[in-house]
Formats: sequence, C-alpha cells, structure tokens
Amino acid sequence: MDSLTEAFPVLRLSDKGSESVEDVVVRESPLTIILNDQELATLLCTPADLKHLAIGFLFSEGLVKGRDRIRKVMVDERVGVVRVEADGIEDTGGNAVFKRFITSGCGRGASFYSAADVQGRIKVDSRLEITASEILALVRGFQGRSTLYRATGGVHSAALCDTRGILLFSEDIGRHNAIDKIFGQCIWADIVTDDRIVITSGRISSEILIKVARRNIPMIVSKSAPTNLGLNLATDLGVTLVGFARGKRMNVYTHDWRVKRDD
Amino acid sequence: MDSLTEAFPVLRLSDKGSESVEDVVVRESPLTIILNDQELATLLCTPADLKHLAIGFLFSEGLVKGRDRIRKVMVDERVGVVRVEADGIEDTGGNAVFKRFITSGCGRGASFYSAADVQGRIKVDSRLEITASEILALVRGFQGRSTLYRATGGVHSAALCDTRGILLFSEDIGRHNAIDKIFGQCIWADIVTDDRIVITSGRISSEILIKVARRNIPMIVSKSAPTNLGLNLATDLGVTLVGFARGKRMNVYTHDWRVKRDD
Repeated sequence: MDSLTEAFPVLRLSDKGSESVEDVVVRESPLTIILNDQELATLLCTPADLKHLAIGFLFSEGLVKGRDRIRKVMVDERVGVVRVEADGIEDTGGNAVFKRFITSGCGRGASFYSAADVQGRIKVDSRLEITASEILALVRGFQGRSTLYRATGGVHSAALCDTRGILLFSEDIGRHNAIDKIFGQCIWADIVTDDRIVITSGRISSEILIKVARRNIPMIVSKSAPTNLGLNLATDLGVTLVGFARGKRMNVYTHDWRVKRDD
Repeated sequence: MDSLTEAFPVLRLSDKGSESVEDVVVRESPLTIILNDQELATLLCTPADLKHLAIGFLFSEGLVKGRDRIRKVMVDERVGVVRVEADGIEDTGGNAVFKRFITSGCGRGASFYSAADVQGRIKVDSRLEITASEILALVRGFQGRSTLYRATGGVHSAALCDTRGILLFSEDIGRHNAIDKIFGQCIWADIVTDDRIVITSGRISSEILIKVARRNIPMIVSKSAPTNLGLNLATDLGVTLVGFARGKRMNVYTHDWRVKRDD
C-alpha cells in the first residue's frame, strides 16, 4: 500500500483560510508489456499486480486465449516491465497488431466497432439469480474494500463476486486496468468466472461490457452510468447490467430476470 | 442534445419497491480518424464536435503541429468518420505511428514514459494570477453547464476559461476526448490558450497534464484527484495544479503563487 501512494505538500484553501499540509496521492507508473520479444504497449497504471495486469491486458486484446498458451511470465517491478512468452500468437503481419491496439481507455478506442462485430462470437450462458438485497450487500462490501480510493480519491476498483461475497478485488488508476487485473488473476490461477458477478466503480461502456462477456460473466454492477452501446451489447450478449447501485437503489437495465425481488 | 442521448427501459429497484420506467442514457459512438488516406484510430466518443475531436486528437498525439498544417477536414457524421488532410506529417516508417498510438485513456498507455521525456520540450510561461474565490466561481459555472451529465450521469466535461468565466465547454464519455474537443476547437479557430485555465471533471494524470502544458496553459483545475506523475510533471512544466475543488475548498498542489488569497 505504501509503495502505491506518495506524500505531496499541498496548500489547502477553504473558507476557514489556508494551511500547508501533506496530502497522500496515488502513484501512477508506466508498465511496458513485451510479448514474445515484441514490445506491445506501455500502460499507465497503479504499480501493483503487474503480472495479472499484463495477462489480463493480453487476454482483453484477444492476443492470448488462455492459461495453457502462456509459457512464461517475467516481472521486473523496478523498471516496470512484464515479459510474456506465449504460444499460438497469430502472425499479425506488421501493423495489424498495433492497429488492433488503438483501443481502450475512457472512450479512447474500440476493439469492436459495433455490436455486430461481436454478435455470434460470445453469448453469456448462465442461470445465475441473485436478490436485490444481495446485490446491495455486495456493493457495500465493495466500497468498504477500497482503501486506496479512500486514501487518495484517485483510483477505480473492480471485484469478482459470487452471490455471497467478494472473491477478488483490485484497484488501479484506470477502470480498464482494474478489471484486467481481476481477469488476469483468474486466467493465471484458473479461477472460474462462470456464474460470477463483476462490480466496477466506473461507467459501463461497450469495451467494459465486451471484457465481461468474454469471460462468460452474466452480471455487471456499477454505481455509475452505462452508455447506450454498453446497454445494447448487454442485451445482445445476455449480460444483466445494473447501474447506479447506490445505498438502497439500483437500475436493472437488461435481463432483469436474474434479479429477484426480496420478499 | 437529443441525438446525444437515448431512452432505455429500466427496472428501478429501491426500498420503496420496483417500477418500470424509462431512463435517459448517453450515446457512445465510434469515430474513425483518417489522416492523409491512412486510417489511424477509432475512438469511442459522444457523437458531437467530431471535427474538433479529430483535430484535438491529432494534435495531442503530436501528429499535426498546428492550424497552418491542416489543408482540409471532411466530417461524415452518419458513419462516424473524419478525414483530415495535413502537411508536414512525419514519415513514420511502418509501425512507428501505431506504436506511438498505444496511448491515452484511463491509465491505458503513455505518450511519454516519464517526466524526463518531456522536460526541455515544453515549459509553461505565464504570469497568470487568479483569486481562490474566482476559481471556485469558475467551478460552479462549470458544473452548471454540464447538462448532458445531469441528464445521464455518464460523461466527463472540460472547459477553457479566463479568470472571469468559461470560454469553451465540451462533454464526452471520455475525459481525454472532452479536453481534445476543446483544444481541437482552439486550433481550428485560432483561439489563444496562453494565460487560460482548463477545468476538467476527471482525474489529473500525466497524460492530461502533458496535453495542457503543450497548449502553454498555466493552470488546470479539477474536482477530482491528481496522480503523483501528474503532480511531478506539473511541478517541472510550470503548471498550477488544483485538485478537489468542491464547494468552498480546493487543494493547490503546485506553483501556488498563481492563486491569490481573497482578502
């Protein structure tokens, strides 16, 4: 935790006057991912769980299909490099791999241009059901876990849950990174994601929805808003999308049969 | 505004029971940018101000240096394509252009790996001064302008200001896009950014700070948190960074001589 934050002097102004204090801010570090000796990408991230982030990123980008394809992962935390050796990487023919990589981030790219691109490829199959009060309990537990957010206000968080509680939790300055860290860990440790629930602190855009559907996850929950493209994909891909889950309220936008009303 | 949102049926659950209502969600659309007949990137964005977004993106990525380099901009709103013809584009030699493009987004890349990469290139030169109460008045005006956010909860916003008020304002699902739309408009219409102030709804990470410093803007204000890399760059590049500007409070992290206390 300590290595994830930094103390910084700040002049704090309010209607009570000004004071010079120390503030705790979140660290942001570059992580370079090298796949089979080819430098692929440099992400800016919270410097924790670098191995899982790299694996999750490669999976999200469609480059590494699963655990059995990964031969070796070497992490150099000091310089911020993860080297992955993997089998079955498509020959990308020059630019192609980079072109695919113009993706991700806050509205900063598209792995898929439209719902049509992903239809037929993935469709979540799960009979998961959960009550509304169980969802709200998960969200409360999720907020209680966000220690780095409470210290700095500067990170997103993500969690993998079942109906009873949180199984995996991560925090990162990027909402995509936080989810990739979770999925990277699932892939690396063979943790099943079927019938699980993902909670994210961020907005649910098309890219987030596609990440989740690719892991066959039937439900995503956020305290924030969805986009129309996120909703259309959720409808088509069989994902229950819950937005604005705060306090005692939530909006169930798609496939609401999975959410049971409490008696 | 209407074309920027979509009505979506939602099951709203609360401790008062459930109701089926219509919710308004923000639209997310792909925008493909073509520079000199080469397809460069597809961004996901709020489909407004596409021309400014494309120009701002090309400037942020360092590909188009200024207005005088741009020969022609053609916008096809229906299919989401902006074609830009520009002079003085470096020959990027195959992969180079794409490699550079692995950037941006929520902790999803790095145009610059460290402060050292940008030092010496840009250093903001401005004697701008503003009082704390003027900053808070700008933030109040900024929040009042965020109509799409109030309708959907799903967008970031950005503004260019002087000490007296907001000059330009934009909203987008991406915090980078919102700022690129502002700067794209400045470049296209020859709007001076020296001695101006940028307000953003998003966190201030290294990439946001670099964007602002490149426009010689001496102050960035956010209601959200900064990262340590954003702060280190602000220190080195001469930018006053104000975070957590909410209600009557704010944190002035760097170059606080520009913020005058009210008497």
